[in-house]
Amino acid sequence: MAAITKPVLKAVALCGSLRKASFNRGLIRAAMAICKESIEGIEIEYLEVEPLPMLNTDLETPPSGFPPVVELFRQKIRDSDCLLFASPEYNYSIAAPLKNAIDWASRPPNVFAGKAAAIMSAGGGFGGGLAQFHLRQVGVFLDLHFVNKPELRVKAFQPPLKFDENGDLIDQETYDILKQLLLSLKNLSLHLKSN
Amino acid sequence: MAAITKPVLKAVALCGSLRKASFNRGLIRAAMAICKESIEGIEIEYLEVEPLPMLNTDLETPPSGFPPVVELFRQKIRDSDCLLFASPEYNYSIAAPLKNAIDWASRPPNVFAGKAAAIMSAGGGFGGGLAQFHLRQVGVFLDLHFVNKPELRVKAFQPPLKFDENGDLIDQETYDILKQLLLSLKNLSLHLKSN
Amino acid sequence: MAAITKPVLKAVALCGSLRKASFNRGLIRAAMAICKESIEGIEIEYLEVEPLPMLNTDLETPPSGFPPVVELFRQKIRDSDCLLFASPEYNYSIAAPLKNAIDWASRPPNVFAGKAAAIMSAGGGFGGGLAQFHLRQVGVFLDLHFVNKPELRVKAFQPPLKFDENGDLIDQETYDILKQLLLSLKNLSLHLKSN
Amino acid sequence: MAAITKPVLKAVALCGSLRKASFNRGLIRAAMAICKESIEGIEIEYLEVEPLPMLNTDLETPPSGFPPVVELFRQKIRDSDCLLFASPEYNYSIAAPLKNAIDWASRPPNVFAGKAAAIMSAGGGFGGGLAQFHLRQVGVFLDLHFVNKPELRVKAFQPPLKFDENGDLIDQETYDILKQLLLSLKNLSLHLKSN
Repeated sequence: MAAITKPVLKAVALCGSLRKASFNRGLIRAAMAICKESIEGIEIEYLEVEPLPMLNTDLETPPSGFPPVVELFRQKIRDSDCLLFASPEYNYSIAAPLKNAIDWASRPPNVFAGKAAAIMSAGGGFGGGLAQFHLRQVGVFLDLHFVNKPELRVKAFQPPLKFDENGDLIDQETYDILKQLLLSLKNLSLHLKSN
Repeated sequence: MAAITKPVLKAVALCGSLRKASFNRGLIRAAMAICKESIEGIEIEYLEVEPLPMLNTDLETPPSGFPPVVELFRQKIRDSDCLLFASPEYNYSIAAPLKNAIDWASRPPNVFAGKAAAIMSAGGGFGGGLAQFHLRQVGVFLDLHFVNKPELRVKAFQPPLKFDENGDLIDQETYDILKQLLLSLKNLSLHLKSN
Repeated sequence: MAAITKPVLKAVALCGSLRKASFNRGLIRAAMAICKESIEGIEIEYLEVEPLPMLNTDLETPPSGFPPVVELFRQKIRDSDCLLFASPEYNYSIAAPLKNAIDWASRPPNVFAGKAAAIMSAGGGFGGGLAQFHLRQVGVFLDLHFVNKPELRVKAFQPPLKFDENGDLIDQETYDILKQLLLSLKNLSLHLKSN
Repeated sequence: MAAITKPVLKAVALCGSLRKASFNRGLIRAAMAICKESIEGIEIEYLEVEPLPMLNTDLETPPSGFPPVVELFRQKIRDSDCLLFASPEYNYSIAAPLKNAIDWASRPPNVFAGKAAAIMSAGGGFGGGLAQFHLRQVGVFLDLHFVNKPELRVKAFQPPLKFDENGDLIDQETYDILKQLLLSLKNLSLHLKSN
């Protein structure tokens, strides 16, 4: 008798920081571990944004011809069910590497349309919250539906220590909020896909 | 044989302008007419924001005791399924009368949480779009889920004439986008309430 | 021999909270004391926003006829050199009482145009920072020039205690930043008025 | 008898679009021509942002060691008196190439601090206005003082034709507003540098 396989939601995770020990990429690793260990029905694939060229629409060959690395990136997002953004804040706004990746994926036909999304960030000050709000405004154009609660803004430079020197998350309280965020993302995604 | 009555979504509509011939209130009247005439399963109740006092938490008597006019207003929102905001733009942001009403409704326990919402606006420049984005940021705290598409920003001072001297909508193209917005609101609301 | 009187900059201070023990109004009292005691060349007048009616342009009698309480309020701002906003944050945006006052003062002819301004706020989360950014966007339309540094966002609910039960500022570090903010406001105001 | 040379303000211009026939770069060319032909006391140097690597702080060698192309770019901004941003809008926010350049220049020591700046944009919808507001928020961290009026948002896809196929500005009304913007930039810059 065949086992019944329930469909599993595919989330794609993008990180706005390119540095090796990035806290924000650390949040993605933690999220992937949480989904594997303790949340059924959702799995996360991490997509590098570094290989993408800086956005220049002269690189497109109409209709809808993109450089191969861009096309591959777009396809991964098109095939996903939902998005997970790790969005550091630079100068009170979105980091350029993340905005660049988003802009490529938004080129017609926009591959984000109608999906659920969650944002997490780590940083000083407001823990990246200002970048999150700019990203939410971007999401209106992209037609993304963001999780509202919980809001995960990790104050990375206030005690207790949240990340180790490799950028790995070592704070249980943040870990717990992150798990709630992922459950919310799964839940919102399922609602949006319901009939 | 008994007729089967399908449940009807209750939307509550709020307007940020107090002037009599407000274009934004005209949008609400048009929305109410559209729902009555051509969209099944959703009905709109218009709630006046003018009777509310200016927000002052000293007027509350804990726990959760509000002035009667505020309590009534909060109850209407609590009992609704979704929200329709007519949000004029003053000085690149939300009009005070609307923000005031929202702030009262957000006082604990926040009566907006988890509902679907749509925004429409009429005005100069960007047709109220800047107020819409500020309202979307407010909605993150309120835990509102906004419709993304279509975006209804009526450029009220560009030809053709969109409203008559009473503030009634007389432009078919705007009417059509408004109908799409209401269908999106109904659709998002049903998705969020699905099991 | 006549004493030479140097001109003194007149700042007008507005507060977005109406509650009696408001922390934000406490910041204004502290600012007034600092100017009196230790900054030459600038004095602050506090203007109540509570008496203003909720914005409704039907209350205007053209050309430029405003209700007397509004006219008086507008005149005080017109006669000032610069502005000091105490801007609490409600639901990630500007408090309605402050927005309402600003909207009245912006009605043509806008009485803010070309002046320098500073913002301070006290609150939870980001210490009111999100309201500050919305206020800065409003200021573009008003043609206000805001001080950038220091940014005064008082995290009112994190230790140490910043305000006593009357809303009076009791924290030396905040007091010091506030003094720097006022010096910056004076400095920017003088630069903008220079020939 | 020696001629007296009045000091000339140096403005640096940055463009957020990399495409060859960019309307936004066309605005910069028009601005340069205007300054050369009809505004005394200010000259504009256009700086390419394309050669900059995508921001990655791992590329820095402390203290303050930047890749040579970044160091050169930072030096040009440090030596300037004011900034002129041509900021296209992608997905309701700043284009990644411009944000990337700004983020490099903001790395400590921030080379923007205290300077005057002006923004112009061309695009659909609100003519780039949403990107402008995000850029203004970024400017608070950078300590830039932006010109408020006029606001130059060129609605590039509405008649009359504003740009030719090379991206050169061909619309007199836009040209006139641009000249006013440059005069405002010169004026604000002189005020901020006054004693």
